[in-house]
Amino acid sequence: MERNPLKSCTVIGAGNVASHLAPALSPWCNVRQVFSPTYDNAVKLSGKIGGRCEPIADLCNLDCGSDLYVISVPDDAVCAILDATSGIDHGLWVHTSGSIDVDVFKGKKSRYGVFYPLQTFSKDKPVDMKSVPMLIEGGTDEDADILLDLAGKISGNVRIADSGIRRKLHIAAVFACNFVNFMWTQADDVLHASGLDISILKPLLSETFAKIDSMSPYNGQTGPARRGDRKTIEKHLGMLSGAKAEIYRLLSDKIYETYHE
Amino acid sequence: MERNPLKSCTVIGAGNVASHLAPALSPWCNVRQVFSPTYDNAVKLSGKIGGRCEPIADLCNLDCGSDLYVISVPDDAVCAILDATSGIDHGLWVHTSGSIDVDVFKGKKSRYGVFYPLQTFSKDKPVDMKSVPMLIEGGTDEDADILLDLAGKISGNVRIADSGIRRKLHIAAVFACNFVNFMWTQADDVLHASGLDISILKPLLSETFAKIDSMSPYNGQTGPARRGDRKTIEKHLGMLSGAKAEIYRLLSDKIYETYHE
Repeated sequence: MERNPLKSCTVIGAGNVASHLAPALSPWCNVRQVFSPTYDNAVKLSGKIGGRCEPIADLCNLDCGSDLYVISVPDDAVCAILDATSGIDHGLWVHTSGSIDVDVFKGKKSRYGVFYPLQTFSKDKPVDMKSVPMLIEGGTDEDADILLDLAGKISGNVRIADSGIRRKLHIAAVFACNFVNFMWTQADDVLHASGLDISILKPLLSETFAKIDSMSPYNGQTGPARRGDRKTIEKHLGMLSGAKAEIYRLLSDKIYETYHE
Repeated sequence: MERNPLKSCTVIGAGNVASHLAPALSPWCNVRQVFSPTYDNAVKLSGKIGGRCEPIADLCNLDCGSDLYVISVPDDAVCAILDATSGIDHGLWVHTSGSIDVDVFKGKKSRYGVFYPLQTFSKDKPVDMKSVPMLIEGGTDEDADILLDLAGKISGNVRIADSGIRRKLHIAAVFACNFVNFMWTQADDVLHASGLDISILKPLLSETFAKIDSMSPYNGQTGPARRGDRKTIEKHLGMLSGAKAEIYRLLSDKIYETYHE
């Protein structure tokens, strides 16, 4: 294998994932272009990378000679990107999605893979990429190795994961991260009505979070539904309405069923 | 006010809250008895306190001369405890519940209040009581002050909170802690099917948790439902069944409605 087969890359997308991945890649692999349909976003991200990174908003201007193409767009948009770039079959193509099978590239690109950072990103919140688990898949073993090597430069936590495992990880991450954050939004809303906010719950949240280091979440469950304390559940439901009441009822029922049936 | 009006106390209950609260109280207020209907639990907790703390399993043996009575039992059981102790109207009576109104004591005890630790406890997991917010209410201002003083000895985060605020805090804590933990259990289950467990998600969880220090959870929301990525949502639902599918669907719908309607 060539010592550094990925000298240059093109990043397609300028959203939450691309905004962290492109700057992390750039010391190892020259990011020559950033594409976003919203030109301002492409400008912003290429500015973060510096050097001679070119912002583009039209896929017709895509560089045909990059060693690596990173498609980092909403899952819904990956196929459209592949169709719009059907004229380019140079280099190694990867997407960064937890949910899309590696086969999406089959018949469309000769060399392909997946470069999935298992982390939640927001554009303006710095993330230590070194600790982000990078889950890699390659269309061939050789391309998997090339991608593993690149991933190993930006993260200390790299592993091969096929599409089936990646999908399960993504579902788990939706529960453990996206849904968890949404629960915090509900709590914050409830507290705002009393002139408080979620900061008063920080010690509780820290403890809840620390607990999973010492016991399984199954064993760490507490609260009215875990205790089967229906009186409290009904009292709380009486104070909630709309989405909050629906969520409270369903989750209390499911916790109750998990521990009492 | 007497310098230390609470020299002795009786703890009624030996569950998760009592197991942490009783040892924290004992340096400041002599815990003379621990009651649990399960004698073994009373023995275990009184052993943790040491000294001459007596375990009892029959409320008839309750000491009539304590300065403080701490009722720390499931919410459902508080009224039964009050009925069973109707013969004792000595001392200051408190419960430790986030959901029960202080008025529960009215007409039953002359002096009463609430001593609510806003934290999640599991018997065998140590907790730094100093950082646990203690929410205090008293039947009179004088008793509120006495309880504030005692709470201030075991925690650095003490405040007066009336029953209405306490109830909202408890509902918020159910969302932010109990339901969050249940989401982690779902994630752990999904991963076990692939020979993994929730530990692979730790960097993601740390980041999700750290994010609420720098932005509101409303602004920090990510994931397929936030993006309106229905294809991924349907793909995930196709891989889930039973309770997990129900939870995934409801929460995705509610996140979608929050950000797209």
